Amino acid sequence: MARAKLSGFPEFLPAGRVVEQRVLAAIAETFELHGFGSIETRALETMESLTRKGEIDKEVYAVKRIHAAADEPAEFGLHFDLTVPFARYVLENAGQLQFPFRRYQIQKAWRGERPQEGRYREFLQADVDVVGQGSLAAHHDVELPLVTLAALEKLHVDFSVPTVTMSVNNRKLSEGFYRGLGVAEPMAVLQRVDKLDKIGPEKVAELLRSELGMSAAAAASCLKLAEIRTPDTSFVDRVRAIGVTHPLLDAGLAELADVVEAAAKLVPGRLVADLKIARGLDYYTGTVYETVMDSMESMGSISSGGRYDSLASDGKNTYPGVGLSIGVSRILVPLIGRGALDASRPVPSCVLVAVDSEETRLAANETAAKLRARGIAAEVSPDAAKYGKQIRYADRRGIPYVWFSPGQVKDIRSGEQVPADPESWMPAAADLRPRVLSAGSGR
Amino acid sequence: MARAKLSGFPEFLPAGRVVEQRVLAAIAETFELHGFGSIETRALETMESLTRKGEIDKEVYAVKRIHAAADEPAEFGLHFDLTVPFARYVLENAGQLQFPFRRYQIQKAWRGERPQEGRYREFLQADVDVVGQGSLAAHHDVELPLVTLAALEKLHVDFSVPTVTMSVNNRKLSEGFYRGLGVAEPMAVLQRVDKLDKIGPEKVAELLRSELGMSAAAAASCLKLAEIRTPDTSFVDRVRAIGVTHPLLDAGLAELADVVEAAAKLVPGRLVADLKIARGLDYYTGTVYETVMDSMESMGSISSGGRYDSLASDGKNTYPGVGLSIGVSRILVPLIGRGALDASRPVPSCVLVAVDSEETRLAANETAAKLRARGIAAEVSPDAAKYGKQIRYADRRGIPYVWFSPGQVKDIRSGEQVPADPESWMPAAADLRPRVLSAGSGR
Repeated sequence: MARAKLSGFPEFLPAGRVVEQRVLAAIAETFELHGFGSIETRALETMESLTRKGEIDKEVYAVKRIHAAADEPAEFGLHFDLTVPFARYVLENAGQLQFPFRRYQIQKAWRGERPQEGRYREFLQADVDVVGQGSLAAHHDVELPLVTLAALEKLHVDFSVPTVTMSVNNRKLSEGFYRGLGVAEPMAVLQRVDKLDKIGPEKVAELLRSELGMSAAAAASCLKLAEIRTPDTSFVDRVRAIGVTHPLLDAGLAELADVVEAAAKLVPGRLVADLKIARGLDYYTGTVYETVMDSMESMGSISSGGRYDSLASDGKNTYPGVGLSIGVSRILVPLIGRGALDASRPVPSCVLVAVDSEETRLAANETAAKLRARGIAAEVSPDAAKYGKQIRYADRRGIPYVWFSPGQVKDIRSGEQVPADPESWMPAAADLRPRVLSAGSGR
Repeated sequence: MARAKLSGFPEFLPAGRVVEQRVLAAIAETFELHGFGSIETRALETMESLTRKGEIDKEVYAVKRIHAAADEPAEFGLHFDLTVPFARYVLENAGQLQFPFRRYQIQKAWRGERPQEGRYREFLQADVDVVGQGSLAAHHDVELPLVTLAALEKLHVDFSVPTVTMSVNNRKLSEGFYRGLGVAEPMAVLQRVDKLDKIGPEKVAELLRSELGMSAAAAASCLKLAEIRTPDTSFVDRVRAIGVTHPLLDAGLAELADVVEAAAKLVPGRLVADLKIARGLDYYTGTVYETVMDSMESMGSISSGGRYDSLASDGKNTYPGVGLSIGVSRILVPLIGRGALDASRPVPSCVLVAVDSEETRLAANETAAKLRARGIAAEVSPDAAKYGKQIRYADRRGIPYVWFSPGQVKDIRSGEQVPADPESWMPAAADLRPRVLSAGSGR
């Protein structure tokens, strides 16, 4: 009698969790190879620090002691991303950190929203950021998407997760372009252009004219800019051809060209300049990134981020940063759910040590201990049943080998049984740990 | 201007987090070598499932959407341990799990209590349990403390975490003994004997007489039982010598003797029978465990657990289990806080690739990529400053090597600089990753 599961709170069965562990290890390894260190922050932030950003607070889960008075306001909320906690961590520990500070952070976050396809109320994110004290060089805007793409590429190569396409834009480019057109409030234009995919170009032009009072020609220029999408630096000439000029536009074009040029060389085909990308959050001030899985674009962005020049600030310093977040749950929950990713077995055990009788359990334990000392995961049969039943126990769990005393090991897939010494026997390398299987790969 | 930190919510600086990562990996590796698989459950449970156990609900953090009506009861609470969520997970997924189900779970838990020494409002636990469907053999009561001790022993051997002593008792033993004395409510006796360390034997005897109406002789017998503490099975004879008999006492003595005998053989000196151990939670029904770090006993138990015959139950089956929980925060927060455990460097980077000028940054990136492809963590200098400044950048982070183009690597500790090829050079093995240092070990 299985109880109903709670919608929006994905949990994996053990085989799915094996996949998740491997994916997380691959992401963490990539980040560390690039010199980013791990931090973890508490799940609870003060309400004050969570609600500073305006509209986001709609989705916060408020937390208070169950015995607090009903009218007592909630002291804490669960973090809804890893950026706000990171900013708080940087301010609290600035005196003990070295800047630029390179960190990654793999943790759950929570949003009290209505669950829907690809949106969860509890979800796992992997964030990677670099933060400076006072200033942060522009080349980090090139570095961070490349680190993120390296992690996502590793998931593709190692586990056959679909390839990705990262779309990149630059707020300075858009803002400079709009200012070059004489627009006083470029954010208002950006917000409307951001609706392009939802409502189409004609309605966006209509909004720009009716709500912002733009001329038909200016609105058309905005749409022309938004249409530009190139896998190389040819976007620069196409923007120039529209004929708008502004110093901020020049800066944005140069920064974006640097990102696209480096990516074309290092991860060809994975990154495109896409001048309609806006990203909702208003703290981005330069490069912005979003990423879809190829052939699964409808899932939405699985990795986004950008440059923020004023994420955190105390009285003395501002802390500019740039980074991206990988939506681990958004990638894995559908892939594991539909069986596109699975584990070769749901248990770590490589060997089941059979037990002849309860009197000889200690000897079986000693055999298992010898295997473990050499890195071979082993469990001892829970009962001294007939050998056939013990083999079925292993088979149901996908455990490939059964060990019989005194020193025989059976590969239960082939049936082959050979004499073996627990101090020297090794399983086939592919059997040592559970492997990640993808639907396309041979099982 | 560092902001005040929130009491009861420990967070580590990057070096402390390196230690925590290594410790968690060592614990997980030990559990997996013993055939326990990882699961994670959501942080939020329904209020209904969290408050079923009576008094515990005092400490629950209630969670509700910030825009829920003020008088709307909280839908969720943060889990306060990993046992309640595990029981819920087993019931929800019973049809897809193989029993006995062996799982470990390393996650944070939350309690809304007043923070004090060794007690946190957010803390990390590592739980390991085996759960049967309908029944679960007694030998698992021997297996689980040994797995836990193996993990704690690995922390001692690998990282010089203090050794531990695990104290074990058995509820059947206590209950059978009290019933043999004619006591109708053995739990009431157990509760009072549990106060022995706090109020002393005379006051416990007084409570047993005045509150439970026991005779002076019976109360004295209870205290005699509670005094017994042996590293071997000699406790059996000492209990027999008191002269109380009961079938349940016999069962408890036999079960406890099995645990002590196996442990004396496999982890000599780490486990003792201690017949005053009670453990507060009333769902334990057999063996109970608690563990102190030697020389840090005042910190309280860093690993406890026991046998529960009815942790979870649906209409059809009960799910008996046995397991322990390692209090990772309780071990690490004080050890890292006072510097007894530290990391050899707070960053993963083994190599800093120096940059001559911004024009040659791409070449530096390529050198770093070649090192990373061979498993050597490398970062590229954030600016093309003078070499002396770049070396100081590495030094402040504990990065041992600086790479100069075209192909020279300097060990900045010794000052030795040698020609090197990024396709073949390897650092000293001890430098490849940050190491855990303990106060006693050579740095």
